[in-house]
Amino acid sequence: MSAIDDVLEQWHRYVGGDRRVDLADLIHPDCVFHSPVVYTPQEGRAITVAYLEAAGAVFGSGESSDGGFRYRSQIVGGDQAVLEFESELDGIYINGIDMITLATDGDHAGTIIEFKVMVRPLQAVNKLHQLMASQLESDRS
Amino acid sequence: MSAIDDVLEQWHRYVGGDRRVDLADLIHPDCVFHSPVVYTPQEGRAITVAYLEAAGAVFGSGESSDGGFRYRSQIVGGDQAVLEFESELDGIYINGIDMITLATDGDHAGTIIEFKVMVRPLQAVNKLHQLMASQLESDRS
Repeated sequence: MSAIDDVLEQWHRYVGGDRRVDLADLIHPDCVFHSPVVYTPQEGRAITVAYLEAAGAVFGSGESSDGGFRYRSQIVGGDQAVLEFESELDGIYINGIDMITLATDGDHAGTIIEFKVMVRPLQAVNKLHQLMASQLESDRS
Repeated sequence: MSAIDDVLEQWHRYVGGDRRVDLADLIHPDCVFHSPVVYTPQEGRAITVAYLEAAGAVFGSGESSDGGFRYRSQIVGGDQAVLEFESELDGIYINGIDMITLATDGDHAGTIIEFKVMVRPLQAVNKLHQLMASQLESDRS
C-alpha cells in the first residue's frame, strides 16, 4: 500500500469515529494548515490538529444526524489527494475539499505536511467562519 | 494519451492564450458549472463557456501582469483532475482549484461534464464575487 493510500485509510477511519486512530500520528511536526476562511497559514502539528478537531466538532465527525457530512469523491495522484465533501450546517449546504500533501522525505516521510481546505458557495464560507470561530473559542476556554 | 491528459493539455493552451483552442469543443453539451460563490448549478455548455470566459477576463487569462494567475499543482485520477491555482486581484491573494470531471460515455465522452471552482480565503471569495458579477453584467450589456 502506498503512503498516500495508507494515510487516507487512517484518515477515513478517524473521520468515521474510530478512536484507535491517533490523528497526531498522521500529521508531520512541521505541517501547515490552510483554512478556507483565513489567509494566514497555521504552522505546526499542534495547531493543525486543533483545527482538524474543531472542524470535526463543527461537522459532527460523521456522528451527527444534523451535519450529514459525507465524502463524495477522491482524487489521488502521487503524494497528494483531494477529497471532496458535502454537508449541511444550520440549513446551509456546504461543498468543499480537503487537499492533503504528504512529506516525501525526512524522518516523518509519509505523514501530512500540508492540509488545505476550501469550501463553496459563499454562504458556506461565511457559515463555517462563524461556527469555527465559536468552536476554537470554546476549545480555548 | 488518456482523455483527461488530452483535455488538460488543451485547457492549459486555452488558459495560456492559444486562440487555436476552441473552449466550447472541450465542454460537454450538458456540462454543469459550479461557481465558488453561488449555490445554483449553471447548466449547459453555453453558460459554462460564459462563466469560464468571464473568469478568464477577471484573471487576465495569463496575459495580465496584474493578476499573475498561475497553476501551482495538478492532481489527476481516473476521469477527474484538480488544478490548484494562485492569483492576486486588486491586492487580494486568491488560492483556488478547478475540479474537472470528464464524461465517460456517450457521443461526447472525453469532454468536460462538470466544472467546479472553489477559492479561499474568505476575502478572495468576496473579491471574486464582486469582479465576476461586474464581468458577467458587462458581457450581457
